[in-house]
Amino acid sequence: MSLALPQSVLPHPSTAPALNWGILGPGWIASQFATSLKELTKSKLAAIGSRTLARSEDFARTYGDDGTRAYGSYAQVLEDPAVDVLYIAVPHSGHADLALQAIAAGKHVLVEKPLSLNAQQSAQIVQAAKAAGVFAMEAMWSRLLPIGNVVSQVIASGMLGQVITVQADFGAKFPVDYESRIYDPALGGGALLDVGIYPIAFSAMVSPAKQLLHASGRLAKTGVDASFTAVLANEDGSTATVFSSIETESPQSAWIAGTEGTLELQRPICCGSGLVLRSADGNIVDSREFTETSPAAGLGWEAAHVAQCIADGLAESPVMPLAQSLAIAQTMDEIAARLRA
Amino acid sequence: MSLALPQSVLPHPSTAPALNWGILGPGWIASQFATSLKELTKSKLAAIGSRTLARSEDFARTYGDDGTRAYGSYAQVLEDPAVDVLYIAVPHSGHADLALQAIAAGKHVLVEKPLSLNAQQSAQIVQAAKAAGVFAMEAMWSRLLPIGNVVSQVIASGMLGQVITVQADFGAKFPVDYESRIYDPALGGGALLDVGIYPIAFSAMVSPAKQLLHASGRLAKTGVDASFTAVLANEDGSTATVFSSIETESPQSAWIAGTEGTLELQRPICCGSGLVLRSADGNIVDSREFTETSPAAGLGWEAAHVAQCIADGLAESPVMPLAQSLAIAQTMDEIAARLRA
Repeated sequence: MSLALPQSVLPHPSTAPALNWGILGPGWIASQFATSLKELTKSKLAAIGSRTLARSEDFARTYGDDGTRAYGSYAQVLEDPAVDVLYIAVPHSGHADLALQAIAAGKHVLVEKPLSLNAQQSAQIVQAAKAAGVFAMEAMWSRLLPIGNVVSQVIASGMLGQVITVQADFGAKFPVDYESRIYDPALGGGALLDVGIYPIAFSAMVSPAKQLLHASGRLAKTGVDASFTAVLANEDGSTATVFSSIETESPQSAWIAGTEGTLELQRPICCGSGLVLRSADGNIVDSREFTETSPAAGLGWEAAHVAQCIADGLAESPVMPLAQSLAIAQTMDEIAARLRA
Repeated sequence: MSLALPQSVLPHPSTAPALNWGILGPGWIASQFATSLKELTKSKLAAIGSRTLARSEDFARTYGDDGTRAYGSYAQVLEDPAVDVLYIAVPHSGHADLALQAIAAGKHVLVEKPLSLNAQQSAQIVQAAKAAGVFAMEAMWSRLLPIGNVVSQVIASGMLGQVITVQADFGAKFPVDYESRIYDPALGGGALLDVGIYPIAFSAMVSPAKQLLHASGRLAKTGVDASFTAVLANEDGSTATVFSSIETESPQSAWIAGTEGTLELQRPICCGSGLVLRSADGNIVDSREFTETSPAAGLGWEAAHVAQCIADGLAESPVMPLAQSLAIAQTMDEIAARLRA
């Protein structure tokens, strides 16, 4: 097995079929998505919906085009026959309800991560999407980028030998404001759902069948998890260790150590500015830089992937399958339960 | 508190008082130590001892000078009145016995890490050294280097704010040879005592009062630990996570994440090629490179520290105190017990 980084085999987003997108929730991530959609793809922002018409109109003016419709309710977007697919970008606590409504309206859905607040809600979404025959995916954009494609190929190739451990961390310091969403348990605040999902999803990609052995951390006075460390393990004793925090920065890196080589993903873990591949003796044998490290520069890859899946008649993504979203939700539930015990 | 890396305040090893060293065990690490002693310090290799006179003679010719005496036993080195201090560089399993003999002979001792095979042996060494009034130190050379001095100053300054987590890893792939020392339980083989002690000692330096919450890993068929992950925690929920392995490489890095900043120590953890300091927003505010990254280039700093401590009449090092060596040994005992449970 030769040790070299493969090339990404992802087609450029501009080659994907065009879709008409409706966005629910004109917040920051929606603005990044719409920017990237316009920059990278042939798809259109057909409609934007929020509870406040003025906010939707602002958003449409700034990020849409002449055809973008602005609505003062989510329901109007769901009823718009010109909308092919919904990007659900409201706070976590609204994901499940809006995803179920969109699916009921016969729309495909891309749900910002986490898919919902917990495994039970996520299972409802998955069940509903399957019953309705619509496409559904959790918006784990890092996996749909060229760097994610290269990492997937490295793992699938077996070139690293037996994987002994995966470690990933995402600490991002948020302003200490106990009135803000990130500190609000009702809105799915805390490190776990907001940033912890990245290292957990990275670990799940490398080895999906991990059991939670340990979780410990610090709760904020509002009850949300401020920081946590978790260790998962396979039956062969190989481990995955994740750290996440909203009260401190961390290197925001990830690495996979195998008996024949190691792969390091360089900051930031959400998207990765580079990969370093080492042989078993620790020497660097290959490395590569990547440029899609901001949402505005990279979310179009995810949108293009969704468009291609839908054009291909798929009900879910082979890269971010629903079963893995469910497994991630289950792991997060278990971590949350241990942290709150 | 300003965020900037302080300068190392360590005097160059050449300014330390001269000592006459005796080395027990003419192996690889002894050769590195002797090389660095000659290159960096005014101290002399007075004597080398092993069970085989020819090996000692070879070593003296290659790494000593005209005055270096070669002995075919350890006892002769201990009896040599010209020897001020012993560097005990035999396999781990011989540390305790030779350290106790050296102390009984009235010699100061620098014991290659780990200080011994377990906390009980280490406590005996500490007790004996205190009773005899001789200097004793575990050879944690990384802490005596300029990079270690800078890290210590950063921690002591409080500039990182409240420390939320420390993570450190040292995976180094050894040839899979079940007949070799590293796979031999009787000789203290396994990841824990050989390489795991580095991330554990790093964690102990940042926060000495950590409780073991979790340890899991993989045992080799000889019974030694091939890989392990351990999580330690303080009462405030802050954690330390260490990974170590002899069956895979890892990034060999370490980092400290605090509420006001983070410090990353770059590969290799044994000595560190660089430091990167980030502010709470994740931006790099300072960084520095270090050159003492190999034993031959760096062990002289440790030798000079020992010489200075002894000249100052100290019975132990303020940088690597015996109580911390005991705490590290205790942690390693607990990890070993969990891995073998």
